Amino acid sequence: MSHNTFGHLFRVTTWGESHGPALGAVVDGCPPGIRFTLDDLQSFLDKRKPGQSRFVTQRREDDLVKVLSGVMPQEDGSMISTGTPISLMIENTDQRSKDYGEIAKRYRPGHADYTYDVKYGIRDYRGGGRSSARETAARVAAGALARLVIPGVTIRGALVQIGKHRINRANWDWAQVSENPFFAPDPEIVPVWESYLDEIRKAGSSVGAVIEVVAEGVPAGLGAPIYAKLDQDIASGLMSINAVKGVEIGNGFGAAEITGEENADEMRIGPDGKPMFLSNHAGGILGGISTGEPIVARFAIKPTSSILTERRSIDSDLNEVDVRTKGRHDPCVGIRAVPVGEAMLACTIADHYLRDRGQTGRLK
Amino acid sequence: MSHNTFGHLFRVTTWGESHGPALGAVVDGCPPGIRFTLDDLQSFLDKRKPGQSRFVTQRREDDLVKVLSGVMPQEDGSMISTGTPISLMIENTDQRSKDYGEIAKRYRPGHADYTYDVKYGIRDYRGGGRSSARETAARVAAGALARLVIPGVTIRGALVQIGKHRINRANWDWAQVSENPFFAPDPEIVPVWESYLDEIRKAGSSVGAVIEVVAEGVPAGLGAPIYAKLDQDIASGLMSINAVKGVEIGNGFGAAEITGEENADEMRIGPDGKPMFLSNHAGGILGGISTGEPIVARFAIKPTSSILTERRSIDSDLNEVDVRTKGRHDPCVGIRAVPVGEAMLACTIADHYLRDRGQTGRLK
Amino acid sequence: MSHNTFGHLFRVTTWGESHGPALGAVVDGCPPGIRFTLDDLQSFLDKRKPGQSRFVTQRREDDLVKVLSGVMPQEDGSMISTGTPISLMIENTDQRSKDYGEIAKRYRPGHADYTYDVKYGIRDYRGGGRSSARETAARVAAGALARLVIPGVTIRGALVQIGKHRINRANWDWAQVSENPFFAPDPEIVPVWESYLDEIRKAGSSVGAVIEVVAEGVPAGLGAPIYAKLDQDIASGLMSINAVKGVEIGNGFGAAEITGEENADEMRIGPDGKPMFLSNHAGGILGGISTGEPIVARFAIKPTSSILTERRSIDSDLNEVDVRTKGRHDPCVGIRAVPVGEAMLACTIADHYLRDRGQTGRLK
Amino acid sequence: MSHNTFGHLFRVTTWGESHGPALGAVVDGCPPGIRFTLDDLQSFLDKRKPGQSRFVTQRREDDLVKVLSGVMPQEDGSMISTGTPISLMIENTDQRSKDYGEIAKRYRPGHADYTYDVKYGIRDYRGGGRSSARETAARVAAGALARLVIPGVTIRGALVQIGKHRINRANWDWAQVSENPFFAPDPEIVPVWESYLDEIRKAGSSVGAVIEVVAEGVPAGLGAPIYAKLDQDIASGLMSINAVKGVEIGNGFGAAEITGEENADEMRIGPDGKPMFLSNHAGGILGGISTGEPIVARFAIKPTSSILTERRSIDSDLNEVDVRTKGRHDPCVGIRAVPVGEAMLACTIADHYLRDRGQTGRLK
Repeated sequence: MSHNTFGHLFRVTTWGESHGPALGAVVDGCPPGIRFTLDDLQSFLDKRKPGQSRFVTQRREDDLVKVLSGVMPQEDGSMISTGTPISLMIENTDQRSKDYGEIAKRYRPGHADYTYDVKYGIRDYRGGGRSSARETAARVAAGALARLVIPGVTIRGALVQIGKHRINRANWDWAQVSENPFFAPDPEIVPVWESYLDEIRKAGSSVGAVIEVVAEGVPAGLGAPIYAKLDQDIASGLMSINAVKGVEIGNGFGAAEITGEENADEMRIGPDGKPMFLSNHAGGILGGISTGEPIVARFAIKPTSSILTERRSIDSDLNEVDVRTKGRHDPCVGIRAVPVGEAMLACTIADHYLRDRGQTGRLK
Repeated sequence: MSHNTFGHLFRVTTWGESHGPALGAVVDGCPPGIRFTLDDLQSFLDKRKPGQSRFVTQRREDDLVKVLSGVMPQEDGSMISTGTPISLMIENTDQRSKDYGEIAKRYRPGHADYTYDVKYGIRDYRGGGRSSARETAARVAAGALARLVIPGVTIRGALVQIGKHRINRANWDWAQVSENPFFAPDPEIVPVWESYLDEIRKAGSSVGAVIEVVAEGVPAGLGAPIYAKLDQDIASGLMSINAVKGVEIGNGFGAAEITGEENADEMRIGPDGKPMFLSNHAGGILGGISTGEPIVARFAIKPTSSILTERRSIDSDLNEVDVRTKGRHDPCVGIRAVPVGEAMLACTIADHYLRDRGQTGRLK
Repeated sequence: MSHNTFGHLFRVTTWGESHGPALGAVVDGCPPGIRFTLDDLQSFLDKRKPGQSRFVTQRREDDLVKVLSGVMPQEDGSMISTGTPISLMIENTDQRSKDYGEIAKRYRPGHADYTYDVKYGIRDYRGGGRSSARETAARVAAGALARLVIPGVTIRGALVQIGKHRINRANWDWAQVSENPFFAPDPEIVPVWESYLDEIRKAGSSVGAVIEVVAEGVPAGLGAPIYAKLDQDIASGLMSINAVKGVEIGNGFGAAEITGEENADEMRIGPDGKPMFLSNHAGGILGGISTGEPIVARFAIKPTSSILTERRSIDSDLNEVDVRTKGRHDPCVGIRAVPVGEAMLACTIADHYLRDRGQTGRLK
Repeated sequence: MSHNTFGHLFRVTTWGESHGPALGAVVDGCPPGIRFTLDDLQSFLDKRKPGQSRFVTQRREDDLVKVLSGVMPQEDGSMISTGTPISLMIENTDQRSKDYGEIAKRYRPGHADYTYDVKYGIRDYRGGGRSSARETAARVAAGALARLVIPGVTIRGALVQIGKHRINRANWDWAQVSENPFFAPDPEIVPVWESYLDEIRKAGSSVGAVIEVVAEGVPAGLGAPIYAKLDQDIASGLMSINAVKGVEIGNGFGAAEITGEENADEMRIGPDGKPMFLSNHAGGILGGISTGEPIVARFAIKPTSSILTERRSIDSDLNEVDVRTKGRHDPCVGIRAVPVGEAMLACTIADHYLRDRGQTGRLK
């Protein structure tokens, strides 16, 4: 991938910092003839929006998305894509630059301050600039478009671990995900996470998390070996999300612990006369190509480095300093990463759907 | 990345199947003026070569690499890169197509047979064709060139887990890696793995593994946010290796379990007057950009699905069949994946080195 | 190049139609640390702006460019690039959609109406939508940034032919270009073109033109053979401009008529002790790589197909119709193409400058 | 395009110099299921092969192409593409390196010797190395595959001008092209060119030429505005051919001389009830998208700079020298450029066919 662009035929270029006038995405290669409403995009942005519970940052950002190009407005208020680039813009509203004044020269440990300064010799310190998780709002808007590209695909995500507290997978219920502030699929974990995160929050601390994203209904055959494997591009997309430190597909790291007998998914002919897998250890991908089974990926988010405890650091004049990050931050950024992970999965699948249609002509 | 090409300025395009006349790589964008010998490439191929111990496949492939273009031969037998594409070719020698005859139509569970057939409608079943791990020989050759691009960088890998047997990190000694058939950095694990793998091998079974690859001496500032983050491209490269199901950087999935205080790497001014990190939980990358600390990545390899036990499957005529994979296979393909992981790390770093030099002009 | 993106390291993605809320460009890969003012961009947009003489369209568009990201605002009103994507936006103001109502279904001969409809099944007929020359405003803004990337390069353009009326090259004077409404370098052609274009304009007709663009001060060595030759990418950039039907470098088509003795540029050592070319038939490029001589390219623009004479055509219901294009159009679109050609040349050179610096590390 | 790769979905990467062991192309993205024979490729290489008349270089190269990967061999000797990269190799046989010894340090005027040395600091002087027209053999092989991608498309080329001697277009007869050593479509020009080229050849001189390439049967709708216009990519492909200095589509530079009334192609409903153009001034492309009419492009080739007359030049030690190019060269390289132009047109159309199928799903 190139700089700020993700994808090959369905290409998403994002731009913008947390404290400029706006941020956005240009979605290039979206097929023509797709009808959608602004709400089809906004509803996903609202899932990611801060300030929705005490467990996420209290910044207030309405994150209202505008569509600036690439569509023909229809009389009923909907739009139809024309095949030309769709420019999406989200204006920044709640900017408190003064919160960041004192870290203009100080490198916050665990943040990208130092590395941006080394690389570029200049850094937009306001809110983290381009390295701010706010950039992910543009991804979510683009991902909402990506979902419309393939009919019949359902893409959902859930939080499966906060700190050392994991969900019980036996309790998995997708319907629960929207019923709690954590996107938790297991209702029994909710009170555990609540009390744990309250503790973290009160201590001015933060903690990591693991998110699982699943795509159902993806046709078999997507993915372009060798260097555009579907799992490779999913890993690339998920690892591009701020603070992600690990990605796995299907059994993931667990596959290292087991034998070939345990890991391989056997096949049979299903009652509908079609090929059927008897298990899905592969997470829906074999040899870089989708099997038709649900695509299952997980990614680990580190605890945000914005914490109230003083940490040792340096500044850009090479003085040793102690840094304490004030401002309004997420005790667990992993929560709001759920819709972002869904968006990256959606973009990756849409891209490969178009690519496969191009190379093989199999699919409509 | 595009189909069979990896990289943006340092571009590696691989081609070839396990049972055609040859396979190879075209390395495009290699800087001019790099002097090397054939042995600089061959030595890495030899590390990956099969048949070197009883723990890897007994196929005999000499894997002799030829350089067909992009260099000026020198009188001392060395070559100097001219800046034009370097074409590397490895001829296939030990092909026993008959071993594969009976699986021409049968889908081996856990292999890419089914997905290739669905996607392409045709499949080179001989030795797995393009999905064979043999393709990684071309990567290793290209990776050997990539190593020559940045002076002062050391890239090494080691096996850290086979099945449930993990090394003791306190014993880590790079010098041990070449002293045992497992690339193990911990001499105490060697007898454990030996007896475990003998068992696996005799049972005609297989098992997964975890590999760690480390790059030392990488200058701070490499990586192009947002969609060409260094960790993203490392994840992309490692996940493109056959059988890889998970990738992590630094603390990886472990970062999900800890707090911001525990995870962030503090900084001080070192005795040399330069910025210094007091720890490396980040694995050498912050905000997608290298910190100057060692880059540390791990990846999980699933057990090969080529096992002697019969597994339920189907064939391309939609008959239900039982499949037992004969032929000469690796009880733990993870072992030979060590030099492949190194190669992908080397290619990624070389690419970002050239890209950074292009965009910022900081480095020589 | 990919869809709506031009360039490899210096990447320009444009978006927007003539009658949506805005259009713009995302410039990705601009080096950090470049200081500029809004006027550095606006001045080039003003050259392209319509309504400046009776020889161009009378639409009124202020074409005010906004910088939405990628810069740190400075106290003196200037900005410094940060190395992150620079989002440029130009709001559309003078939209008279009613002018286009009656051609919503009719295919204007010579326009892209028919081909867009065939390809996409839907078309933004308002002002030509994405195929409108208005898109070139975004290029000019991006080109203004590209000019800042390489110090010491001067990029200029001039109109050298309208209809059959060519300038006299012996009269070439760059200072004249800004002194007449045609960007003519030859003052003697001005009255000829005036009376000719008045005639064309009054007849509701249109006519073609040839533009020459020149880059001086380009260092030798830019261009990446074989498929990223500098002349190839210049041809690609110029041919991407609306209505361009031909591109030539140096002697161009004239080179077909002469002998090797006449065409090759001889060399000597100059008075400064450096290599010197005795002529520049090559237009500053040999083997796809810049020689250090001025880069000289010409491109031919067809007459706009928006004319008042009725022409035979069809509509999207496959009725035969006669079409007469009302609205405010350019009798010679070639005039306003001069700054656009300059912009594409600037973007191409900036891209190759960064690429060369990346691959060879020669240049600062 | 990137370095040595042409195309986006149908990607051709060429490698190799004129005097290394071999040269070749990796064709990545070729659709699966295409059946072809070696002769389907070889027949086009034979058209380009040197030594076929006294009007082209007398080097003897058999240019036998081998297919190293990406196909399943069939019992009848044909092959079927599998969708994986097709590696094509042509071994170099007739290498007389001694011919080039004395120009190892001398820059031949009009050649790429100087620019390669400036850029790379090293140059393969043997036969021009990578800048040799021999590289085009790999393009022709790849182009032969590209032709197989779209059913029903015919791609042909002809020489239309040598020096100042143009064909009479009224005499155009495609059947004549294979009947003379010039690929001339006008039998009356043949004796003119013969005597003119004999003169040029005997004088040790060279002359330029213009080639016209035409694609018939291309469906309407190919081309991806704005920066992947079909004409843009055709211009890019043709300008990438060695010695090309100009490219035009349809009326080309002639369009600059005429009015909108003369240039626009009117439309009617044809006898088959389908849209029909009444002329083809546009050369089959409007707004960057194919109209369904024949695609017509022309390109100008400069006279080769390898001539027997001494020319003033310098060497790499900055001495002034006189250079006379011995060796076996083409008096008019334009002749052998005909199949190369066809190949680039074929590759461009194949790429856009796959891209369009990917984005819009219209075509099979």
